[in-house]
Amino acid sequence: VTDDATPPHDDPPVPPAPVAAGTARDAALGAVGRPGSRRLVATPALVCDVDLLEANIARMAARAAEAGVALRPHAKTHKSAFVAALQLDAGAAGIACAKVGEAEVLVAALEAAGHGDVSVLVTSPVAGAAVAGRVAALAAACDLMVVVDHPDGVDELAAAVAAGTGTGQLAVVCDVDVGLGRTGVTGPDPALAVVRRIAGSPGLRFAGVQGYGGHLQHLPGRAERATATRTAAGRLRSVVDALEADGHEVALRTGGGTGTAGIDMEDRVLDELQPGSYVFMDQEYRDALGDDPEGRFAQSLFVATTVVSANQDGFVTVDAGLKAMATDAGPPTVVGHAIDVHYHFFGDEHGLVTQAPPTRFARGDRLDLVPPHCDPTVDRYDELWLARGDTLVGVTPIDARGCSR
Amino acid sequence: VTDDATPPHDDPPVPPAPVAAGTARDAALGAVGRPGSRRLVATPALVCDVDLLEANIARMAARAAEAGVALRPHAKTHKSAFVAALQLDAGAAGIACAKVGEAEVLVAALEAAGHGDVSVLVTSPVAGAAVAGRVAALAAACDLMVVVDHPDGVDELAAAVAAGTGTGQLAVVCDVDVGLGRTGVTGPDPALAVVRRIAGSPGLRFAGVQGYGGHLQHLPGRAERATATRTAAGRLRSVVDALEADGHEVALRTGGGTGTAGIDMEDRVLDELQPGSYVFMDQEYRDALGDDPEGRFAQSLFVATTVVSANQDGFVTVDAGLKAMATDAGPPTVVGHAIDVHYHFFGDEHGLVTQAPPTRFARGDRLDLVPPHCDPTVDRYDELWLARGDTLVGVTPIDARGCSR
Repeated sequence: VTDDATPPHDDPPVPPAPVAAGTARDAALGAVGRPGSRRLVATPALVCDVDLLEANIARMAARAAEAGVALRPHAKTHKSAFVAALQLDAGAAGIACAKVGEAEVLVAALEAAGHGDVSVLVTSPVAGAAVAGRVAALAAACDLMVVVDHPDGVDELAAAVAAGTGTGQLAVVCDVDVGLGRTGVTGPDPALAVVRRIAGSPGLRFAGVQGYGGHLQHLPGRAERATATRTAAGRLRSVVDALEADGHEVALRTGGGTGTAGIDMEDRVLDELQPGSYVFMDQEYRDALGDDPEGRFAQSLFVATTVVSANQDGFVTVDAGLKAMATDAGPPTVVGHAIDVHYHFFGDEHGLVTQAPPTRFARGDRLDLVPPHCDPTVDRYDELWLARGDTLVGVTPIDARGCSR
Repeated sequence: VTDDATPPHDDPPVPPAPVAAGTARDAALGAVGRPGSRRLVATPALVCDVDLLEANIARMAARAAEAGVALRPHAKTHKSAFVAALQLDAGAAGIACAKVGEAEVLVAALEAAGHGDVSVLVTSPVAGAAVAGRVAALAAACDLMVVVDHPDGVDELAAAVAAGTGTGQLAVVCDVDVGLGRTGVTGPDPALAVVRRIAGSPGLRFAGVQGYGGHLQHLPGRAERATATRTAAGRLRSVVDALEADGHEVALRTGGGTGTAGIDMEDRVLDELQPGSYVFMDQEYRDALGDDPEGRFAQSLFVATTVVSANQDGFVTVDAGLKAMATDAGPPTVVGHAIDVHYHFFGDEHGLVTQAPPTRFARGDRLDLVPPHCDPTVDRYDELWLARGDTLVGVTPIDARGCSR
């Protein structure tokens, strides 16, 4: 097709700077503080009500303080230094990150925002010398802990630390499978193998255990969730007992999520909680936690859309489709029309929104959607627009968007 | 929580520049040209085999040339100036873009790549004065056409052109609903209303009609697809007849996709085709087009993953989950293991890959996945890694990633 299809690869990617799109963004920013300005943001857009966000952050912080457990909110939900800083200012012990790349970006962005030397836990095990080297480098830039679930992973981290220039020890947490099966050691014996290997590695320090029950978070009904959470906690407890009997101090027991936070606070098996979604909430958590007063965090996150076509009877077409939100948890709901109006995905770029009398949407109308699943929705946007009610108050980058490596 | 939760909003977002991640990227780029270097890319990553990409582009171009129809490949699939330039070099009449924001970025990136004044069709109608103003601005930077499906939309574009500084006319295409119902006028009478309004607007020029049958592209079985395509073509033909009878020259009949391209080339109702997915293919199209020799484009796009945990019997965990690919079309398949091994989504960051003897995956192994749906998968990544077989040949930005506004 061409004689050389290989593009230049010397330069890092340059972000596009489209003049006209920049103008639209500037126009919205120019209206910050003006009532009604929220509707000036070009759609589809991710919008957060900061009043509700702040209330969610304050509520979880107060509950954790009252229960006497530490809070390490998971940044995989928001990927934003702005939100992380609010959480740290409210007393969080640090942040949790799903991937090393997420942590690399957020540490730098938090440093720039005045939160240097933040405590970071990377909650997924990594594999390979290359990423272990990045872990060792990151440890020089923050107060880092990383989980591991296999002796080979311990060896990779130890080798990376030995090869690095730092002089301190890397704090390593043993990831324990409490029933999800996704990652973690499967019981006391493999836990002992991992922790003994950590203890025998000069550059590493054993910091504690992680038991994250991802399979528990969305169980419908608090009673069922509590029973299953206690089963999972028993698995973690048996590992902790074996490690302590072997002479290891288990200084940290971290885990938990938005769905089980209240239960974990009662049970106190975990002394540090990692909830993420509570800052924004989503349709999936609203459905699962509907009967649980502890689950009543406010829906602070919205996908703003515009009706771009209204030529059909019974429905209109909006400008947010498969590319505009996560699709793994069903369709979004339409704010203000939870019962009478339904959204259906309508291809990559569009959605179908039903209408029936007395509801009538017209071309150009704006609708807000409640995302079905917040984390992978947020991860699709470069920026989070901030509003208080219908008034824009600013915009903030989703710093670690796409940083899944 | 804080006394002022409003972040500074004067500056455009600054892309993060994590040093360690940059180092990993540099290491992979440093190995470009070395056999086996493909496995050095940090995962999850989007990788394209350029040999297969080029073959797909050449094949569609040759078929369109032979059939005597123009090709305007849809850029919503790849969002990449690199791929668009290959298509233009192979004879494409221009590019199609789903959204104005996508066109803004690709026009600038193509200009920088030596493809100035490219012909662009925006294939989705827009609503509102703000985005109409962006259309008018974009028309000064490229050879632009934009679709419209309502007289109010015509008026918005006319007002924006009148308010702008350009002296030429904006080319407007009447979008016709051929059965999908998503956008477009519903028949001859509303088409006449739109086109007469265009003809009566001094700043606008009627350029032709678009009839895109998104509902046809994945119909399984060529015979069923051909029958339905002919029904849709009949709807477009009736609109064209009415417009010509009213004295309008219909200079362009554009539409079609990867699924119907061969049928459209035979039928010749459309004189310009907009296929997108053929460059990469995906599991959804492979399933739908399996019996159609015309549909046998090569799978050139892959999501590269690494096994990060292998502590369970029967499955391992890889580092690509709900955030790493589109989830609307089922799970991906595992390259080289289409029958014996299955991927299941396993949360935001991970996937579960089954294994059974004789297949055994180990911690650190790399697996390539065939994305279920290419367009929204590509839209999640900043960069497309380029390989020929197992040898990296470069990396290219996905310029318009996230540009859905």
